[in-house]
Amino acid sequence: MTPRERIVAWLRTAGAPLSGEELARRLGCSRAAVWKQIGVLRGLGYRIEARRALGYALARVPDRLGPAELEPHLTGRWRDVRWLAETDSTQRVARELARAGAPEGTVVIAEAQTAGRGRLGRTWHSPRGVNLYCSIVLRPALPPAAVPQVALVAGAAVAAALAATPGVEPRIKWPNDVLIDGRKVAGVLTEMEAEVERVHHVILGIGVNLNASRSAFPPELRERATSVLLATGHRVDRAAVTARLLAALEARYGRFLEGGFEVVRSEWESYSCLTGTEVRVTSPDGEVAGRVAGLDADGALRLTRPDGTTARIVAGEVTLRG
Amino acid sequence: MTPRERIVAWLRTAGAPLSGEELARRLGCSRAAVWKQIGVLRGLGYRIEARRALGYALARVPDRLGPAELEPHLTGRWRDVRWLAETDSTQRVARELARAGAPEGTVVIAEAQTAGRGRLGRTWHSPRGVNLYCSIVLRPALPPAAVPQVALVAGAAVAAALAATPGVEPRIKWPNDVLIDGRKVAGVLTEMEAEVERVHHVILGIGVNLNASRSAFPPELRERATSVLLATGHRVDRAAVTARLLAALEARYGRFLEGGFEVVRSEWESYSCLTGTEVRVTSPDGEVAGRVAGLDADGALRLTRPDGTTARIVAGEVTLRG
Repeated sequence: MTPRERIVAWLRTAGAPLSGEELARRLGCSRAAVWKQIGVLRGLGYRIEARRALGYALARVPDRLGPAELEPHLTGRWRDVRWLAETDSTQRVARELARAGAPEGTVVIAEAQTAGRGRLGRTWHSPRGVNLYCSIVLRPALPPAAVPQVALVAGAAVAAALAATPGVEPRIKWPNDVLIDGRKVAGVLTEMEAEVERVHHVILGIGVNLNASRSAFPPELRERATSVLLATGHRVDRAAVTARLLAALEARYGRFLEGGFEVVRSEWESYSCLTGTEVRVTSPDGEVAGRVAGLDADGALRLTRPDGTTARIVAGEVTLRG
Repeated sequence: MTPRERIVAWLRTAGAPLSGEELARRLGCSRAAVWKQIGVLRGLGYRIEARRALGYALARVPDRLGPAELEPHLTGRWRDVRWLAETDSTQRVARELARAGAPEGTVVIAEAQTAGRGRLGRTWHSPRGVNLYCSIVLRPALPPAAVPQVALVAGAAVAAALAATPGVEPRIKWPNDVLIDGRKVAGVLTEMEAEVERVHHVILGIGVNLNASRSAFPPELRERATSVLLATGHRVDRAAVTARLLAALEARYGRFLEGGFEVVRSEWESYSCLTGTEVRVTSPDGEVAGRVAGLDADGALRLTRPDGTTARIVAGEVTLRG
């Protein structure tokens, strides 16, 4: 952490105001240098009150997902978070980091994306400062065929993290769109570089609409997309939700690596909005229609066709019928 | 093609010597310019005889896989061949080309690799000017789970191309090592960049030991590796074999995309050296021992365990037992 981030962390965890003298001592610098850093932090949106004879107190942190804001909330081992005020795509940045050797659990977060990407070449609408856009480097010792399961694990983690917010009942639409009230609140983009026998790395891109207002969505998305704010009427603490999501993902991913997808399946199914519905699935192999019977142990979607036979769908796009 | 490559192509296909005047006319340049190009070609290893009153005749082309040498042999649609006298790894070069948008069928060939790569992070010994080192950009509309089948298709193509050389009886060791007399003559490295639903590109790396002498192999490889020269006692025309391999691959890959792995399976099995043998397979899921029963329709290796149950192996390393 930088000296400024350390000041924020100390002020945040101190039960009482901290004097300039104390901060100078901890940082090993002059009181004048502390004063200068406090000035910079105020310029960055931190409200820091100077209380006479007591010292500095943190009255408000800016609504941002930078290290100083996120760090106090993090509970897991994934702590290498690279924060960007703006980028083209966190997925692109994380991929470059992975190619350069970044370890598992490296996280890239941006406040805004100018070219945010979704599945199948689609764009991901990424307005500034209201949502979560992150990409995570994973290095599972798995063959490429098991990577769709990692994507399902991520969907379950996103749903679980959102379900902790009062009033939010997330649902997953296979494979890993997360919906509230039938509208998309989050998406997962799973990309890999691999050889046949093993994955080199997986980049898990997660976008969650948190505090986006209706006007933050372009007109064509307003009927299909939502945010936690729109669904509940309340803004969430983005840093707290982000940390919760990372912890939820790290925990489930760890269990999945240990015990396979089976250990995550029942939680995943508890969020599924498709079981029992009539759907049409467009996949690389063509189109299949049927009723969703459930999820196989390996994460494939099981459909019962009109003639009673069963189809297994490993990858595809689901449309509800009727 | 460059003017020099065009001169070579004309001389090669002409039934009789071509005059300097004729070449100048075809190129739209002076006879002096033709003479200069002929001089450069001789410097590059072409033996071009100047026959009095008749013109130039091509007596020998250098042993090289450059466009001028390869082009006359090519029969398929894959003709964008990037030739390099030396590179670190054709796989690396092809991947960069693919990331920059190179279309399916783009081929990278090098005379020597300073950091040739094999499967699972191994090196591929790549001495200069005697073998084939190539990487091919593919863009199949498939999910990642189907890519192991592309690797099997490549193995069958390599075996078929080698089988056309008199005295060579290639065998495939699952998944796609190609052996002659139990020693490795060729290997396939299959890498991909993909999302869960679809492959962005596959880079198929193929190394074939053609005219390498025993001394061209490091001592630790001499018992395990061979070349066509070592197996038959005869040098092959590297350009002809390379073109045959590309044509064999393009044809089988096209049939595979149309009809699935099933259409390539029986040919693949005709080359397999494992069917009926007792093996041990090390895969990301652990170790399995059993007798090889055959190949599933999706390319998975089917093993019969000692207890009579069947194991399906999608990716792994096979060791013969006993």
